[in-house]
Amino acid sequence: MPGYVTHLEGAIDGARLPAGTLRTLHEGRPILVRYDLERVARLVDRDALVHRAPTMWRYRELLPVEDDANIVSLGEGMTPMLDAPRLGAALGLDRLIVKDEGQLPTGSFKSRGQSACISMAKELGCTAVVVPTAGNAGGAMAAYAARAGMEAHVFMPRDTPEVNRREAVLCGATVHLVDGLIDDCGRLAREHADANGWFDVSTLKEPYRLEGKKTMGFEIAEQLGWRLPDVIVYPTGGGTGLVGMWKAFHELEALGWLEDTKRPRLVAVQSDGCAPMVRAFEAGERFATRFEGAATVASGLRVPAAVGDFLILDAVRESEGTAVAVDEGRILDWMRQVASLEGITLGPEPAACVGAAEELARAGWIRPDESVVLLGCGTALKYPHLMPDVEG
Amino acid sequence: MPGYVTHLEGAIDGARLPAGTLRTLHEGRPILVRYDLERVARLVDRDALVHRAPTMWRYRELLPVEDDANIVSLGEGMTPMLDAPRLGAALGLDRLIVKDEGQLPTGSFKSRGQSACISMAKELGCTAVVVPTAGNAGGAMAAYAARAGMEAHVFMPRDTPEVNRREAVLCGATVHLVDGLIDDCGRLAREHADANGWFDVSTLKEPYRLEGKKTMGFEIAEQLGWRLPDVIVYPTGGGTGLVGMWKAFHELEALGWLEDTKRPRLVAVQSDGCAPMVRAFEAGERFATRFEGAATVASGLRVPAAVGDFLILDAVRESEGTAVAVDEGRILDWMRQVASLEGITLGPEPAACVGAAEELARAGWIRPDESVVLLGCGTALKYPHLMPDVEG
Repeated sequence: MPGYVTHLEGAIDGARLPAGTLRTLHEGRPILVRYDLERVARLVDRDALVHRAPTMWRYRELLPVEDDANIVSLGEGMTPMLDAPRLGAALGLDRLIVKDEGQLPTGSFKSRGQSACISMAKELGCTAVVVPTAGNAGGAMAAYAARAGMEAHVFMPRDTPEVNRREAVLCGATVHLVDGLIDDCGRLAREHADANGWFDVSTLKEPYRLEGKKTMGFEIAEQLGWRLPDVIVYPTGGGTGLVGMWKAFHELEALGWLEDTKRPRLVAVQSDGCAPMVRAFEAGERFATRFEGAATVASGLRVPAAVGDFLILDAVRESEGTAVAVDEGRILDWMRQVASLEGITLGPEPAACVGAAEELARAGWIRPDESVVLLGCGTALKYPHLMPDVEG
Repeated sequence: MPGYVTHLEGAIDGARLPAGTLRTLHEGRPILVRYDLERVARLVDRDALVHRAPTMWRYRELLPVEDDANIVSLGEGMTPMLDAPRLGAALGLDRLIVKDEGQLPTGSFKSRGQSACISMAKELGCTAVVVPTAGNAGGAMAAYAARAGMEAHVFMPRDTPEVNRREAVLCGATVHLVDGLIDDCGRLAREHADANGWFDVSTLKEPYRLEGKKTMGFEIAEQLGWRLPDVIVYPTGGGTGLVGMWKAFHELEALGWLEDTKRPRLVAVQSDGCAPMVRAFEAGERFATRFEGAATVASGLRVPAAVGDFLILDAVRESEGTAVAVDEGRILDWMRQVASLEGITLGPEPAACVGAAEELARAGWIRPDESVVLLGCGTALKYPHLMPDVEG
């Protein structure tokens, strides 16, 4: 089936760029994929999507791959939207929903982005890929690269959780341990990519992980009957999912698929141990300063600088949302709270969102009757060192 | 919506027993749930199932809960059926599919059984449950009990993998570590259940976990266009899933939902470190002798004696299947093989099935052109100690 991509677009200046070639940044900033949405609207019947398999590839015409044969999939997508009445009651929210992305392949939402970008890497003729990671992206990339039969290299901080390291090795990737943080890994990945001809799939440094991540926005809409919630609470490291969902909502509106075009307010959540986006939001800035001394048990939030900072901050502001830094010292308590009240075993990144939701409900920023989706980006199972053990 | 259960049935003698009360064994053996399948066939349109949410509860009329309000769900079910062409080529199988149950809540197929049995426990008024476990069932039970607001007790061998222990604690269960194996845990669970009035949800010692597990059989049929594969390769500990799928195929045939009533041959896979079912199968016996000195890294297969032994052996024989004990020493190699060739991170139990498939293909027992479903019962992520680490 032919693709619906019309062109690529520089996010910083709106420059129109040709699709169909391997690309990284434009003017040092991310590139967005644009589609012929009028054509998609004419040819795709929203209500016939129900007949498609429950994966993110049900939104086939809104994803960049041209040839179906290039789709690299492990069955990712259509994760459940779980009502959380007990947790909601504890937080003062009557309509709280957890989207449980821990049920994706490799246990986190990183699989969406990797499915899209490894598919495109395959379509564009890549045979080797490289990624820097703060945690889960490395394992996901290794899995999808294995699925595609590609050579894979992962650069990760030496103190990345053990499971992230081992799952990448299990999938046959070469893992390079780095004394530093993800941005240090990013520099090394870039150098090796240039030297060896590997494709660098750093988030937002190529156009396609964003496209995979945006499917969370499509799913939230479809699963809520093509209406959007009042608030989405999102754990923000590189921020690709937040930016992706915002892009998805624009596309859905352009397609005329939404029953009600009222957009959710986006909440970008970070730990006070690493909160560059929250600082920039509060300072009224469009670009963030690197957060020095970043330290948080939520390894996916340990991202001191993000190349898509302005996209995150633009989306949060356009949505009339906010950015919240939660108490690092309480993340393990929130993990335990959601697991013991709802049986949903969230990792530390989405656990931080529990704290943010509590704070915003208490402050009246979220009203008790508003619908709130907490983006449960990954499972606790990959963080055994953060889970309580048997006493005695 | 009213239920379709007509009665319960003693598996050993066919005795008709009333439904609607808490029950454990009958004559020391499992109890099966029976439905008014004629009524289900009249009222449910197979082809309209596509409009239902992608969870195991899409087969609502074939599950035992009477009142929808009692369904305890974490969104479990409709796990992907992943083509595995590279692994298939390595094994000599042209049509190999992995059903990836690692994408279920708590990372294993135990969630299906627990969703069903905790729902029934809720419906029948239980407020406290207890389970013995060799690994994943304890975490799953703790999660579903938390979801239902029930008190939960888990008895597990002291050397059960760390993640299984910690996930149960995270979900608020009380974990009791036992110096022994799962059958020792089972005795202690029984004693505590009797003393404290807890409901014992040991597998096949209550009727409902089997009902949850059978949904794998429904899904395999639905996902293959209401046809069954030639062979299903199944990692066999307590064997509930194997027995459940066999029951599901009977029910589907009675409903008239199958396009072709040819049944798959069932392969029960164990490790040669704990192979009571394989020994009994080879000896032509209907009941198995306890396997002394059981030892395998595949903790879910470390089940030296199973109360449903005759149900497993009956199903394997009726299906013209077989039972295979694989080399314990190669399980980690098979984990690595499937992950590096397909990006599917299987735990050690389903990895053993890779070895069995290889052996049966080589022996000609499975022909290259036969369709084979390998039941990927759980994720590797819960076994970091079995995954390779970075070298050097």
